[in-house]
Amino acid sequence: MPNQPISGNELARFSGPQTFMRLPSAVNAAGLDVGFIGVPMDIGTSWRSGTRMGPKQLREQSAMIRPYNIQTGAAPFDGLQMADLGDVPINTFSLAKSIRIITDTYDEFLKYDVIPATLGGDHTLTLPILRSIARKHGPVALVHVDAHADVNDEMFGERETHGTVFRRAYEEKLIQPDKVFQIGLRGTGYTADDFTEAAGWGFTQHLAPDLWHKSLSPLAAEIKAQIGNTPTYITYDIDSLDPSFAPGTGTPEIGGLTTMQAMELIRGLRGLQIVGLDLVEVSPPYDTSGNTALVGANIMFEMLSILPGVPYR
Amino acid sequence: MPNQPISGNELARFSGPQTFMRLPSAVNAAGLDVGFIGVPMDIGTSWRSGTRMGPKQLREQSAMIRPYNIQTGAAPFDGLQMADLGDVPINTFSLAKSIRIITDTYDEFLKYDVIPATLGGDHTLTLPILRSIARKHGPVALVHVDAHADVNDEMFGERETHGTVFRRAYEEKLIQPDKVFQIGLRGTGYTADDFTEAAGWGFTQHLAPDLWHKSLSPLAAEIKAQIGNTPTYITYDIDSLDPSFAPGTGTPEIGGLTTMQAMELIRGLRGLQIVGLDLVEVSPPYDTSGNTALVGANIMFEMLSILPGVPYR
Amino acid sequence: MPNQPISGNELARFSGPQTFMRLPSAVNAAGLDVGFIGVPMDIGTSWRSGTRMGPKQLREQSAMIRPYNIQTGAAPFDGLQMADLGDVPINTFSLAKSIRIITDTYDEFLKYDVIPATLGGDHTLTLPILRSIARKHGPVALVHVDAHADVNDEMFGERETHGTVFRRAYEEKLIQPDKVFQIGLRGTGYTADDFTEAAGWGFTQHLAPDLWHKSLSPLAAEIKAQIGNTPTYITYDIDSLDPSFAPGTGTPEIGGLTTMQAMELIRGLRGLQIVGLDLVEVSPPYDTSGNTALVGANIMFEMLSILPGVPYR
Amino acid sequence: MPNQPISGNELARFSGPQTFMRLPSAVNAAGLDVGFIGVPMDIGTSWRSGTRMGPKQLREQSAMIRPYNIQTGAAPFDGLQMADLGDVPINTFSLAKSIRIITDTYDEFLKYDVIPATLGGDHTLTLPILRSIARKHGPVALVHVDAHADVNDEMFGERETHGTVFRRAYEEKLIQPDKVFQIGLRGTGYTADDFTEAAGWGFTQHLAPDLWHKSLSPLAAEIKAQIGNTPTYITYDIDSLDPSFAPGTGTPEIGGLTTMQAMELIRGLRGLQIVGLDLVEVSPPYDTSGNTALVGANIMFEMLSILPGVPYR
Amino acid sequence: MPNQPISGNELARFSGPQTFMRLPSAVNAAGLDVGFIGVPMDIGTSWRSGTRMGPKQLREQSAMIRPYNIQTGAAPFDGLQMADLGDVPINTFSLAKSIRIITDTYDEFLKYDVIPATLGGDHTLTLPILRSIARKHGPVALVHVDAHADVNDEMFGERETHGTVFRRAYEEKLIQPDKVFQIGLRGTGYTADDFTEAAGWGFTQHLAPDLWHKSLSPLAAEIKAQIGNTPTYITYDIDSLDPSFAPGTGTPEIGGLTTMQAMELIRGLRGLQIVGLDLVEVSPPYDTSGNTALVGANIMFEMLSILPGVPYR
Amino acid sequence: MPNQPISGNELARFSGPQTFMRLPSAVNAAGLDVGFIGVPMDIGTSWRSGTRMGPKQLREQSAMIRPYNIQTGAAPFDGLQMADLGDVPINTFSLAKSIRIITDTYDEFLKYDVIPATLGGDHTLTLPILRSIARKHGPVALVHVDAHADVNDEMFGERETHGTVFRRAYEEKLIQPDKVFQIGLRGTGYTADDFTEAAGWGFTQHLAPDLWHKSLSPLAAEIKAQIGNTPTYITYDIDSLDPSFAPGTGTPEIGGLTTMQAMELIRGLRGLQIVGLDLVEVSPPYDTSGNTALVGANIMFEMLSILPGVPYR
Repeated sequence: MPNQPISGNELARFSGPQTFMRLPSAVNAAGLDVGFIGVPMDIGTSWRSGTRMGPKQLREQSAMIRPYNIQTGAAPFDGLQMADLGDVPINTFSLAKSIRIITDTYDEFLKYDVIPATLGGDHTLTLPILRSIARKHGPVALVHVDAHADVNDEMFGERETHGTVFRRAYEEKLIQPDKVFQIGLRGTGYTADDFTEAAGWGFTQHLAPDLWHKSLSPLAAEIKAQIGNTPTYITYDIDSLDPSFAPGTGTPEIGGLTTMQAMELIRGLRGLQIVGLDLVEVSPPYDTSGNTALVGANIMFEMLSILPGVPYR
Repeated sequence: MPNQPISGNELARFSGPQTFMRLPSAVNAAGLDVGFIGVPMDIGTSWRSGTRMGPKQLREQSAMIRPYNIQTGAAPFDGLQMADLGDVPINTFSLAKSIRIITDTYDEFLKYDVIPATLGGDHTLTLPILRSIARKHGPVALVHVDAHADVNDEMFGERETHGTVFRRAYEEKLIQPDKVFQIGLRGTGYTADDFTEAAGWGFTQHLAPDLWHKSLSPLAAEIKAQIGNTPTYITYDIDSLDPSFAPGTGTPEIGGLTTMQAMELIRGLRGLQIVGLDLVEVSPPYDTSGNTALVGANIMFEMLSILPGVPYR
Repeated sequence: MPNQPISGNELARFSGPQTFMRLPSAVNAAGLDVGFIGVPMDIGTSWRSGTRMGPKQLREQSAMIRPYNIQTGAAPFDGLQMADLGDVPINTFSLAKSIRIITDTYDEFLKYDVIPATLGGDHTLTLPILRSIARKHGPVALVHVDAHADVNDEMFGERETHGTVFRRAYEEKLIQPDKVFQIGLRGTGYTADDFTEAAGWGFTQHLAPDLWHKSLSPLAAEIKAQIGNTPTYITYDIDSLDPSFAPGTGTPEIGGLTTMQAMELIRGLRGLQIVGLDLVEVSPPYDTSGNTALVGANIMFEMLSILPGVPYR
Repeated sequence: MPNQPISGNELARFSGPQTFMRLPSAVNAAGLDVGFIGVPMDIGTSWRSGTRMGPKQLREQSAMIRPYNIQTGAAPFDGLQMADLGDVPINTFSLAKSIRIITDTYDEFLKYDVIPATLGGDHTLTLPILRSIARKHGPVALVHVDAHADVNDEMFGERETHGTVFRRAYEEKLIQPDKVFQIGLRGTGYTADDFTEAAGWGFTQHLAPDLWHKSLSPLAAEIKAQIGNTPTYITYDIDSLDPSFAPGTGTPEIGGLTTMQAMELIRGLRGLQIVGLDLVEVSPPYDTSGNTALVGANIMFEMLSILPGVPYR
Repeated sequence: MPNQPISGNELARFSGPQTFMRLPSAVNAAGLDVGFIGVPMDIGTSWRSGTRMGPKQLREQSAMIRPYNIQTGAAPFDGLQMADLGDVPINTFSLAKSIRIITDTYDEFLKYDVIPATLGGDHTLTLPILRSIARKHGPVALVHVDAHADVNDEMFGERETHGTVFRRAYEEKLIQPDKVFQIGLRGTGYTADDFTEAAGWGFTQHLAPDLWHKSLSPLAAEIKAQIGNTPTYITYDIDSLDPSFAPGTGTPEIGGLTTMQAMELIRGLRGLQIVGLDLVEVSPPYDTSGNTALVGANIMFEMLSILPGVPYR
Repeated sequence: MPNQPISGNELARFSGPQTFMRLPSAVNAAGLDVGFIGVPMDIGTSWRSGTRMGPKQLREQSAMIRPYNIQTGAAPFDGLQMADLGDVPINTFSLAKSIRIITDTYDEFLKYDVIPATLGGDHTLTLPILRSIARKHGPVALVHVDAHADVNDEMFGERETHGTVFRRAYEEKLIQPDKVFQIGLRGTGYTADDFTEAAGWGFTQHLAPDLWHKSLSPLAAEIKAQIGNTPTYITYDIDSLDPSFAPGTGTPEIGGLTTMQAMELIRGLRGLQIVGLDLVEVSPPYDTSGNTALVGANIMFEMLSILPGVPYR
């Protein structure tokens, strides 16, 4: 039997180790199907900071989640071996060095056949992770749920920040542009083609207003069909959600997705060959109730529920 | 003319007695159609505590509500005599004794022909209330709006907690299983049959995902038809709502009902022979704005608006 | 080229002047198409206070907004000259005198051909503004988005408060009653005809429950058709939104509009001859995250995006 | 036996009526030695508002206090009959009218031989109370604990606000200037003689810096000696305390008194012929923990402990 | 070299395991000089709850503390082997059973020669710990720093709650009454002899007012002399501190100790034969900044700094 | 007459421009005696972030301060010309580049004969400012009030962070080591000589415990005597204060200075040849009440009050 989260009936939820879902810790990825990794950083953010505390609060709130997905039948811990690998030792004074440290750390993890499940941290972290992922799996399909396209060329002259990730990933061929899906885009921009240039590269963009008042199950089916068997990375920015659902984030944009839509979308992607996933941009100082992190932890759980090899009951 | 809430045009809303809707207090239920009762407890909770402060904050926020339901035409205070009966003197150090005290207190109230309208407090309180209710009215129909089915057999070996209420009620024949409707269930579980066992007893369960993006008016009509003239108890757990609507609660689950759905549901139940109702699990420390309690107070007001004997204009 | 907001790529968003969207300040309205004006007051509120801090927080949060409306193509700063005119020097100890000061100030502004865009402050401020507006433009059409009709005759014997604005405006013929649209009304009332009397004057009222689960684009089209070329004032009370979207306000009512609906509504009004607009009732102490103000600033931006003369790309 | 607070061992502190210290309510002052009265207002404040919620939060937090002053031996409820008289029905839209309503209300109370113990509300309320007090008792001695002298001539042209109270009281001969003691004054001013003019009238002013690091027992003894048997009013502004002790107030000034000093001062005044007292300027939105109100409630309790007729054990 | 806290220069303080001071975890006390144990409970509290989250927040904030006590020269981790033993698996629905579980757990720990350093949790937990301690060491001397004497006979008829601990300990001869020192007592009581009865048993009580404005170094010296070589338990209730220093607690009392005094007191006790210590009553929901827990973690660190065997540099 | 802050009697304090004390803005330092400059950054912090919002909140809260220092008689705006120079355009993604930008900006300011008064931002900013200051004035005397000595050699291999400032300043001969006074040091360290090495360079260090319970006036006199006429820079870290006075900061340490001591210290330094000053480390997300920033703004005002040329009345 693989590792199981500590049950809330065995040890009260407000106690025990502060690992993701109170799973065991592991020092390396040997033998793991999935490894949870914190990347506690906010030095890549452009408005409110605080995401450096994100991994802590995500783990704390994950203690609320029980192992069985009662709505879908998924039992992720029955089929896959999971553990918490702790945090990447970032250099909090240097964004550039932190990016290198992240890649080095993930290269090390990916010597094993593990799916890294990352707890952020600001969205900059996805770039160095994709570098490691692509080194192992080649250019991947990308499901990118976010309020922002993050395809700026530079910010303050810097080429690697939380707003430039997917342009870099495109340029470096870490992703397959025709299998990139950006979902939930909205907000405001500096020019008319802030987003559309990326559409020109092959990215498929779903603006939030086109998704309002709708189930996302059909969209999920469409994306799944287009990606097929390509190895896929899912990057989930909590600010894809409307701020009413996820107030604790750094660059909130109104008119976003609902958590119901988020769950429909993820559940509909079951069957993809997922090779990595992350949940980013939870900023605890802006939601001390912990509810934003609780949302984030649940979205991570929904992503776990669709991994290859998860049994359904 | 029955008791009226103090008008906000007579005495500023932020002043006056802190009874529900600033109604008069009463020392017993003599002459009352409806009696508001606080059950300030949180020792039956399993994650975040704080619901012991719930009755206080519900009463405080109820001062915002005016007597006439402008959306439905209901004028509950024109037809029914209501007053605030204060709080049950629970024993905050013993859950077991508190449960007995609650039953004793309600038995006393129910010597009069009154509908108890309870302000919680954690959901454990519904069990001792149902015992008193069943003693008077026999097994009742139950409309149970909640994120959780609360049908565990035990928690930490205890048989009476906020997670075991409706299994006990079923076993003790306090409710008519084929007239039990659980609405809004979701979240995660420990096994595949966390919920389904109760379905086997005759409970009708409506999982939240089946209700997303929909009006609940049709569901309400269906439930009303199935219950017919059976005396009915409504228990409304604030965590049935999505945490975006009700962040201040102890065990929030994402993907819940909206307040719009809550109002549709309740309004559609007009005509039932309601014999008791409660609003539980508001946890003030987790929403110091008071908005969760304001939602709770409004839901209580909506429930009052459908009581037998309420005139409509 | 007209004034442009300072770009977040030039000067970090958390720095720079605290004007609306970090536009230049102006001492008078000469040469401006649109002037932002703060009216920092809360002495007209009846439940929670705090809106006196509203203009400050709206300006602070507006720094998040970029100049181009990526969802609609609007480029408001490319076509219109805008600046921040600062705050009205209200008398915080006298509501009556503050009302006179506001009218005097707006009379002064309106010597120029400017659209005043007001940042509130409690809703009382709309009355003195409408007096100035009507003096210049004659009785105007009114799009009034709000949870409350604000058509009381008096409150505590006072005839000019945040709950009596539109009765006074009607009596004083500042508005054309058959071109008044009240959207989002709900909550509770003191009598059955709290709202309906205003319907008798010619006001068109759209109660929130009639709008639940729906796109507001059709409603917007309908309103636009009925108003036609009449000069129009838009007054947007943040409490029209559901408290889940806008918790930081003084008299929240459950079951409100969503921000998605708010944007549909405003976007659908493009083409109206707008002569003034305001955004009122943001109460910072009740949402220290700033998210309610961020919603308010975005709604202001959406209203700017539909002003006559705004180019679309 | 006079009225007793409900014991926390009888009814859990978080339950029961929300009167001051859970004493009985009374509809008038007949038979009372002390009557608690709320004056819920903030329309006289000049910076942060919110004190309209002060009486509510003071009563809520007072439930923590037990009847016996273990540090001094005072047993105030054994010797004096006390009850809660509820709130003054202020007109929240008019400061001027509210001032008149307060005087009218206190005139009514003072037909009985009662000591009014007022829960504020902003400091403006002390002026109309002193008018009633002086009508009954003649000009009184005044112990005024505050960060501010509140002796402005006018603010925004208004002569009756929270910053002008004691100049008006002086001009109207409500107080005996040579028996006025202002303690804790500090902060900044508009001119060099902001405070000193009042010294010229005979007021004795103790600036906070002269009190730092010191026991206030000697000061209390000195004041008591100078006042002697003159009927005395004590007005306690919570902002006399340093903001570290009382963060929830509207115009905090650093370098203030400690709660230890506050208690020394009050305890040292035992023996004065106190005819009225108030505790003002608690602003709940700025301290949602309730701790500032808890401080305020305790200071009220300390003042009760030195009233004439209180037995000591 | 014994276990060392992870250095903040090696791994950013906001990352890494959430053990006390980021020390290694241990599954039992074998080989440890000091073991940190969380007792996450609040079901023994009588006013505000929330201390069940205390151990979590204490560990989180302890990440701020570096290993060397620069003010005293103590280097606790150089001389003693310490680790984090996790949390006691309390039964959150039964105070009585939790008390038994705690004793059983500590009996198990104390089979080893370890000093238990407990992170609370409400103060009830000290009773079952003292039972285990006394079983091993015989009746101990007690340094009890607290606002409350906790010597009630019962509360709501219960004999084991957070207000009865030291009467029970006295009756059961777990402590040596003439070597019991209660420091910081204050607040209010139900009778004149709430405290004094315990004085009659031999307890030495230092009321807070006697300690105001003073260094506690002399008091510490006096206590140390009187205790001598008797095995000693230190129980530190965070509410001994003034609420300005420790707002996040359940039953705050004004006029308390300062953190400076707390440090003087503890530092002055160096040399005692300490056999156990605890830090209780931190209630995170009432201080979401984490500062109260930071104070608590520092006080724990100061207590570690005076343990027998700690080297000084 | 030099620039005056807008009076709170002219324009309500909660309105007007958000410059420091609502002074006029200036685009360069021409003609100014003092220029306020924001340096909004937090990328140099090692624990909690958020100081990037510091300058905003300091300016907001400064609106509470009136122009005349009633406690000391200082009238700073009567003698010196002051204005707000806005914010330094830091590069929020690169600490190294931001440091260079700060020096460049201050070099530009210091072409004029102005005293820069900096609003931080994390403490890293003092290093680049001292570089500019030393370029103009030569090595300066330094009054450094702080919980931390900030004399690390490096952190995560970085030589320029908020913890290494004064070692770099010493090495680069920006300061005169025998005229460096570090006041308020405390907390914990990594080695015994974390602080003492700097003592070896000539720095005078006053640990907090040596200052507890004392007036700092004698210390100020001593420092003033030792510095004499040397040009002096004052750097005031808000975390020098105890967290009870300044909870909103990134690395709080218990047992700190009081605001009373801070004012004594600063007032006692009157007469020094001050050439620059800063107030750093206010972190708004950790004190949403604004009180920490209010403390910071007042400390800035006290520092202004002792500048050369300030008249006293």
